[in-house]
Amino acid sequence: MNKKIVIIGGGFGGLSAAKTFKNKNVDVTLVNKTNYHLFQPLLYQVATASLSPSDIASPIRSILRNQQNVKVILDEVIEINKENSYINLKSEGHISFDYLIIAVGAKHSYFGHDEWEKFAPGLKTLNDALNIRERVLSSFEKAEITEDLLEREKYLNFVIVGGGPTGVEMAGAIAEIARDTLVKDFRNIDSKNTKIQLIEGQERLLMAYDNKLSEYTRTTLEKMGVKVRAKTVVTEINENGIKIGDEFISSNNVIWAAGNKAAPVLKTLNIELDNSGRVIVDSDLSIPLYPNIFVIGDAANAKDNSGVLLPGLAPVATQAGKYVANLIIKDQNKEQRKAFKYFDKGTMATIGRAKAVVKIGGFEFTGFFAWLTWTFVHIMFLVSFRSKVIVMLQWLWLYISNQRNSRLIVKENIDIEQKTLN
Amino acid sequence: MNKKIVIIGGGFGGLSAAKTFKNKNVDVTLVNKTNYHLFQPLLYQVATASLSPSDIASPIRSILRNQQNVKVILDEVIEINKENSYINLKSEGHISFDYLIIAVGAKHSYFGHDEWEKFAPGLKTLNDALNIRERVLSSFEKAEITEDLLEREKYLNFVIVGGGPTGVEMAGAIAEIARDTLVKDFRNIDSKNTKIQLIEGQERLLMAYDNKLSEYTRTTLEKMGVKVRAKTVVTEINENGIKIGDEFISSNNVIWAAGNKAAPVLKTLNIELDNSGRVIVDSDLSIPLYPNIFVIGDAANAKDNSGVLLPGLAPVATQAGKYVANLIIKDQNKEQRKAFKYFDKGTMATIGRAKAVVKIGGFEFTGFFAWLTWTFVHIMFLVSFRSKVIVMLQWLWLYISNQRNSRLIVKENIDIEQKTLN
Repeated sequence: MNKKIVIIGGGFGGLSAAKTFKNKNVDVTLVNKTNYHLFQPLLYQVATASLSPSDIASPIRSILRNQQNVKVILDEVIEINKENSYINLKSEGHISFDYLIIAVGAKHSYFGHDEWEKFAPGLKTLNDALNIRERVLSSFEKAEITEDLLEREKYLNFVIVGGGPTGVEMAGAIAEIARDTLVKDFRNIDSKNTKIQLIEGQERLLMAYDNKLSEYTRTTLEKMGVKVRAKTVVTEINENGIKIGDEFISSNNVIWAAGNKAAPVLKTLNIELDNSGRVIVDSDLSIPLYPNIFVIGDAANAKDNSGVLLPGLAPVATQAGKYVANLIIKDQNKEQRKAFKYFDKGTMATIGRAKAVVKIGGFEFTGFFAWLTWTFVHIMFLVSFRSKVIVMLQWLWLYISNQRNSRLIVKENIDIEQKTLN
Repeated sequence: MNKKIVIIGGGFGGLSAAKTFKNKNVDVTLVNKTNYHLFQPLLYQVATASLSPSDIASPIRSILRNQQNVKVILDEVIEINKENSYINLKSEGHISFDYLIIAVGAKHSYFGHDEWEKFAPGLKTLNDALNIRERVLSSFEKAEITEDLLEREKYLNFVIVGGGPTGVEMAGAIAEIARDTLVKDFRNIDSKNTKIQLIEGQERLLMAYDNKLSEYTRTTLEKMGVKVRAKTVVTEINENGIKIGDEFISSNNVIWAAGNKAAPVLKTLNIELDNSGRVIVDSDLSIPLYPNIFVIGDAANAKDNSGVLLPGLAPVATQAGKYVANLIIKDQNKEQRKAFKYFDKGTMATIGRAKAVVKIGGFEFTGFFAWLTWTFVHIMFLVSFRSKVIVMLQWLWLYISNQRNSRLIVKENIDIEQKTLN
């Protein structure tokens, strides 16, 4: 009898595990909430209208279509029963397993202020990205129509909370939209009057990088017209804007890129979670007392040899998925388990057109060459050959023309239509 | 003082009129419900996951950005006051005009059965296309999960109502999805068991073409696995399926491509409309007694010299937009108006991969060469250079690989997330 392996999640970790089982004598079931794998590092480009959803999302069934030992189920897992080795699905019964790989990822955390979510959307899913895109584009449209100057100011004020890579990338992209892309498109507003502020609680941007890169990022953003405010704490967000310390900024466009918490289903494991809701795993990424249950990627609190927490990055999840799948295969031969080792190939973030920061091993560099490296690496890791070609072309076009081509407000339209029908 | 011209609608007619005013001494305001111009002839390709929304939709502001005499407003017109020469907007006051060009298009008509709409979505807007895409893709997912054979049958039954170009194109594309694209992707269902039926009330498909082309279309569709049923009338549509005469077909996928009615705002003109809600216009496309108000495109009931109704096609709208704009310019010199003449460059419809029908003047042809012609013409008329390149690549990819790359179920996901949040 082949061992039954269940993978929850079709992100970098889950997909990497599933692929590693290719041609092995195991029966794999991959359960995912959506029918696609999302290339999350480029999600901000969908939110800022440079790429289309289908450029960075590929149907999981297509990716795994030639792997006959993998079954894909589009469903949501609502409970994990570790004692009796099964998971419960939202719509259809349960699935039992011999091995379970939990790769459910994280969502944004509002540090106990969940009521802020509706005023300050985060950026984790394709829907988040589409919501932000529509909100940003609609704001310019509303600013164009209104004759109330205070209201116009509210629509043209953009506040991004969180100075990590996502916050930096969003701030840079919105600055480019306001100053380059839209500059000729409007008649009543001067889109150069857009105010973009990037708020960070700690003392500098991109805390995972060295001070020099943080500094470069700050000055580059400032040249692009972004006001960077470090050591600044958000105290309130509502429908009118955001409060920072005692200062209230009127804004229709508050974007949240500040915190993460692991997916809620992990609570059903009934084991110790860290402050961010992640499962504290052993050195082989299994959970205590259950050597057949693994947690990988953003859902795991895993440490390297020196006790440093592994970062929530795609390469960590990908390597962990491959490691766990190989470990399960070796388990059949009763081999001793070796601890997971993350091989750090480097990290990078883009700030804007021809501007990025890269850190590879001891090397750090910035500017045009860093941006080329970023571009090359991201295209290389896109799942399908087709996406690679399309994204390359979209970027080439963006670089030459400064035009963003996915500037569609689709949901607004739903509202209008529904109102008309009612 | 420049004349104030208001254009309602950014489709083929409205946009063509706006562009014709380039460098003329007039002030143009274009009001549109969405922020994009939609290339409607390819909408079925979004519904069937071959193209992304942004491939066939371009921001109207971008298209007109270099035309300083055009102002674009994203809003909905709720009333046209012909006596006092102004229009009322849904959100912000009213706009007065010297000349008005009404190019509001049509939506689908359920022949008095508006309650059918929610079970049998039509295909007019980007949202319609996304809804149909999600419904079709979700049906395969649900058929994969369920163990109830009757339910599975319901999910794999596709019924398209209406044998015009849209119906034929949808039926052909769904047949290709079921038999080629998805064939390896599922484990529990054999997607070859998909049943696709195309229902037409009149005696043959594509009534606008000659009998020979209709016959070719029918046999081609039948070879692709589509059951074509002419002279068949729909008597009922509900959540379980569709009733044809006395026969009930259980189906989760009924798609409506049968009838059109012009946009409801035309009623506020308080003049004679035809059975499909279109305005009956004079030979110069103006409305009776108001030589400064024009109706063009799908919203107009316009006849050629021999009294034949002009069809609801993109070229008719485009030529009419240009004609009316030029007529308004000439009006300033008190020139005599000449009647509108439609120059028929031909019509075409695609059935599937390398299969299409084309009618140009006296010529009619079918098959691979017709399909190449269709492909070439459609790429040529896409608004932007970028769309041309991207769409060409997407089609090349589809042709080589049979893979459809926009197979994303995004809205399903919204539901799941919203439920989780609530």
